[in-house]
Amino acid sequence: MKIAIIGLGLIGGSLAIEFQKNNTVYGIDNNAKNQQKALELGLVEKIIDYKELSKIDVVVIAVPVNATPKIAVEVLSSIDDETLVFDVGSTKEGVCHAVKNHPKRANFVAVHPIAGTEFSGPNAAIENLFTNKVTIVCEQNLSAKKQIEKFLHLFEPLNMRMVFMNSAKKHDKHIAYVSHLSHISSFMLGKTVLEIEKGEKNIFDMAGSGFASTVRLAKSSPSTWTPIFIQNKKYILKSLEEYIDNLLAFKKHLKNESKEAIYQTMEETNHIKEILNGIIK
Amino acid sequence: MKIAIIGLGLIGGSLAIEFQKNNTVYGIDNNAKNQQKALELGLVEKIIDYKELSKIDVVVIAVPVNATPKIAVEVLSSIDDETLVFDVGSTKEGVCHAVKNHPKRANFVAVHPIAGTEFSGPNAAIENLFTNKVTIVCEQNLSAKKQIEKFLHLFEPLNMRMVFMNSAKKHDKHIAYVSHLSHISSFMLGKTVLEIEKGEKNIFDMAGSGFASTVRLAKSSPSTWTPIFIQNKKYILKSLEEYIDNLLAFKKHLKNESKEAIYQTMEETNHIKEILNGIIK
Repeated sequence: MKIAIIGLGLIGGSLAIEFQKNNTVYGIDNNAKNQQKALELGLVEKIIDYKELSKIDVVVIAVPVNATPKIAVEVLSSIDDETLVFDVGSTKEGVCHAVKNHPKRANFVAVHPIAGTEFSGPNAAIENLFTNKVTIVCEQNLSAKKQIEKFLHLFEPLNMRMVFMNSAKKHDKHIAYVSHLSHISSFMLGKTVLEIEKGEKNIFDMAGSGFASTVRLAKSSPSTWTPIFIQNKKYILKSLEEYIDNLLAFKKHLKNESKEAIYQTMEETNHIKEILNGIIK
Repeated sequence: MKIAIIGLGLIGGSLAIEFQKNNTVYGIDNNAKNQQKALELGLVEKIIDYKELSKIDVVVIAVPVNATPKIAVEVLSSIDDETLVFDVGSTKEGVCHAVKNHPKRANFVAVHPIAGTEFSGPNAAIENLFTNKVTIVCEQNLSAKKQIEKFLHLFEPLNMRMVFMNSAKKHDKHIAYVSHLSHISSFMLGKTVLEIEKGEKNIFDMAGSGFASTVRLAKSSPSTWTPIFIQNKKYILKSLEEYIDNLLAFKKHLKNESKEAIYQTMEETNHIKEILNGIIK
């Protein structure tokens, strides 16, 4: 199949590496440096233009989530009747809303592969980024059955677990808790520690693997994450409020030296052990 | 040398495994089950009594930090003139204060090996837990030079990096930021997500390795951490306040959709990358 990937960063580039194994992959990117880099790295066969999309079998939209809704509409208006279009953004409500009434809505599949690293750009593209991870598909009932099948067939060699979660709203709400909030807590932890440890030598000397693990996501790309946070603002604000409330309650217990309350809140949360064992690391 | 380890949990037990390679290791533990388990696992040669400490060359105090100050005083009062005593607690101000005016203060070394796992008890003891990690020594000027030398000689096979940080107060302040705060942020993140994701299925389906990494410390033992938090309350409360302030500022930026402020706060924190590269994982 002929596949066009719009956005040749970490996710688009890593998909290109996988898809190239069985298909011909073309690239679109509005950044000339990224175009050049993607060609140099052999991620894509050649750089094409939106005008050429009518000859393409599958179009992948892998741009920052704030740009996705508009591009999705544009792409759907440029394709052939048989073309599959899917996006891979971390938020789904915006794009699903944008394409809702498009005459080619059935050609579109709303996809979120839950995979990534803290790096970005074409250089960050790696093989096997998606292996054994989860992909969520939203509003599958609004996609043509044959397009879902084409999508599943294309992803089969990637060995991902497919989860169908009809509601894009529900996706965005839950992902705010299990992904977006983690990023914010990690960034703010990093910020707090950097502010106090200005000399930095103490971080080197005293931080162990626990700190490194908790603050790992603070290495993530601001270009990727600023639009995600803004797009999923509603649910993130709610999760942030609940998180801050829990921190304030803990602070109060600590201030009062309420040993039992501190012990109990930790013990209840320990239960996360069994859940984490179910997450593919 | 004859070594007695008081407290046969994760840290005491793991030290026992290392010290047994070149020494005879005895154990003291006020929990009968832990005594039995430590013997079964071969962590110690036999269980002894405080009364027998006068015949011991090195006494290691590896009990929860709230018990450490009192035990340190007791042990110093029971030992021979040549015996080395050191504790391995995560807070240092309390124990240093307790032994400050003890006639055998010079026999004591205040030690914090920065190593651990989320498990606890004798069963959690593992080989090589300390390899390539950091050990902090506080108030080294109040320990006899020959006791410091004995301590360094004993730790040599463990291949740890030794950091001398004279002030116990400074240790407790910095460790609040780079270790204790991480644990609280992780526990409260776990709690927040568990509260919303009551069905748990969504966590399984949607959480990626980023969430797993950020919440890893929420698996830690409440028995170990409750006393640490209470003992280091002063500095932890300060760090928690600063962390909550940073989260509130982020929340405000998000509410106002201040893209630039969000981007900038993340970009500044990205700098943690280079620092993390210096931490042995």
